[in-house]
Amino acid sequence: MTSFTAINLVKRPEGSVGPELFEVVEKTVPELKDGEFLVRQTHMSLDPAMLGWMSPDRNSYIPPVELGDVMRSSGVGRVVKSRHPDFAEDDQVMGMFGWQELAVTNGQGVNKVDSDLPPEMVLSVFALPGLTATQGLYGEGHPEAGETLVVSGAAGSVGSIVGQLAKADGLRVIGVVGNDEKADWIVNELGFDGAVNYKTDDIGAKLDELAPDGIDMYFENTGGPIQHRVFERMNAHGEIIVCGMIADYTAREPSAGPNWMNIVRKRLTIKGYTMPDHFHKAPELLARLTPYVQEGKIQYRTHVLDGLESAMTGLNLFFTGENKGKLIVKL
Amino acid sequence: MTSFTAINLVKRPEGSVGPELFEVVEKTVPELKDGEFLVRQTHMSLDPAMLGWMSPDRNSYIPPVELGDVMRSSGVGRVVKSRHPDFAEDDQVMGMFGWQELAVTNGQGVNKVDSDLPPEMVLSVFALPGLTATQGLYGEGHPEAGETLVVSGAAGSVGSIVGQLAKADGLRVIGVVGNDEKADWIVNELGFDGAVNYKTDDIGAKLDELAPDGIDMYFENTGGPIQHRVFERMNAHGEIIVCGMIADYTAREPSAGPNWMNIVRKRLTIKGYTMPDHFHKAPELLARLTPYVQEGKIQYRTHVLDGLESAMTGLNLFFTGENKGKLIVKL
Repeated sequence: MTSFTAINLVKRPEGSVGPELFEVVEKTVPELKDGEFLVRQTHMSLDPAMLGWMSPDRNSYIPPVELGDVMRSSGVGRVVKSRHPDFAEDDQVMGMFGWQELAVTNGQGVNKVDSDLPPEMVLSVFALPGLTATQGLYGEGHPEAGETLVVSGAAGSVGSIVGQLAKADGLRVIGVVGNDEKADWIVNELGFDGAVNYKTDDIGAKLDELAPDGIDMYFENTGGPIQHRVFERMNAHGEIIVCGMIADYTAREPSAGPNWMNIVRKRLTIKGYTMPDHFHKAPELLARLTPYVQEGKIQYRTHVLDGLESAMTGLNLFFTGENKGKLIVKL
Repeated sequence: MTSFTAINLVKRPEGSVGPELFEVVEKTVPELKDGEFLVRQTHMSLDPAMLGWMSPDRNSYIPPVELGDVMRSSGVGRVVKSRHPDFAEDDQVMGMFGWQELAVTNGQGVNKVDSDLPPEMVLSVFALPGLTATQGLYGEGHPEAGETLVVSGAAGSVGSIVGQLAKADGLRVIGVVGNDEKADWIVNELGFDGAVNYKTDDIGAKLDELAPDGIDMYFENTGGPIQHRVFERMNAHGEIIVCGMIADYTAREPSAGPNWMNIVRKRLTIKGYTMPDHFHKAPELLARLTPYVQEGKIQYRTHVLDGLESAMTGLNLFFTGENKGKLIVKL
């Protein structure tokens, strides 16, 4: 094995995300220096945040991927060769390995993972989705038993964990999704109290039915009309945690937000956050999250794409909403 | 003296506020019961919040004024007759006396004020404007020396105090106003670092010039286009305190707010508040504010209207921006 396949970003997205933005290249496996090791990636994570990483001027919190560089992503793999004292052959590791079969690393930002944990669970729960859900719900918000929480993108990797954590904490949880299969999953499998299908339901009427006492907390993953209908129904002293705006990531013209009068009337707090500010807190976030997982309260499902090159079309599933669970590329 | 004049609210505002909403009536002075006292009001305060009190369905934080009731307002007066153990004749008092020459009260919500303090200063600094500015800046926000603050409605009763407190704390302070005379006042008299005239300046270009390092804190009193231009220029981890939206108080169609993508990108916090939630903290807010006043750091100016009935047209000055200082009706 002297060469491997990688995928570079070569064009900025303008309204859509597909193979036209990328270039598949063959790379030569470099010699390892002292302190380095070689990882064969087995599973790559596709996350909504990656859409931001491709667009430099729309994103200020993390440097964009440079054109011509390997597309950035997190993944799980096995060490195949090591000249690093802390990493041995066959260790399972997690890190930002990018869209490539092999990665050489000095270990910075790479963490060993229990070899018994399925890679799908690592990427679906203990990586970005679980950290993001835990920071958002507990680090930014103040959920309390008996309150009503609405989460958009509720069948997504972050939204589904947010909803399950809140449910375990005794909140009433309403999820907003884009099709009936997802609605069925979050209600009948995850135990949410209700679901709104934003494509077919009258969003406002459905919210009135499912949250008759108003909404105390809104966890925002999507933007769009849902935002306005939820915003109108917020209770006094409500909290809105803004995690993502998938509907606006690549829009040329951002959609209008709600008028701020309700922020005064209801004394709302709206907070935005992104995980790069909080990665240093990963150990405490995992300590908060892990008991819920151990008690069987966090279910997940994956949508596995096959082969490195499937990543190029896979990202588009975030826009169509066709993914059925955490998007993972199996290499 | 057996009768006095009062003004009742008889109609809800629809886009404008004028004498057509009110009715001037003569009332008979009632007999005092034990525990009551009679106040002759000398000065009434007109505040933007009153616009909210007139519109029930647009306002959830304080019950609206019922049609047929005396219009609600705060004011300063002198006790003229008392059957209350704690209030004696000629005491100067402050309270929610409403639009009337005389008020009978049992003392609830009425506070004695040092008889030497000019009533204009009481209403301009130590009443709603000062409490609102202090709670907003320190109770909701976290201003730090060296940061840049933009305040809209900067020559208004709240905005002018917010800006002066922040200036005294070592922030760079930019005020947004609606005419050059106000711009001149806040810069040359109050010591603000700059002013934007939102009616004649290119708001964005002027903000770029006055706040070249971006904006860390925005104190929102007005809404309108200013909000969008400031929002675009917020720095990472910036704070927005939403105190009022004068531009939207009586609008039939609320104007669109900014898209929320910037809330994520910049990890902004937006907080709305209203004073009825915080009146119980008045003593600590006054304790925080008073040293600034004693050190001569809080200037104010008043716009005094003459006679009870001038209140009916006076409220409209909030929309036209023609008031030159704290609006006070001298009876």
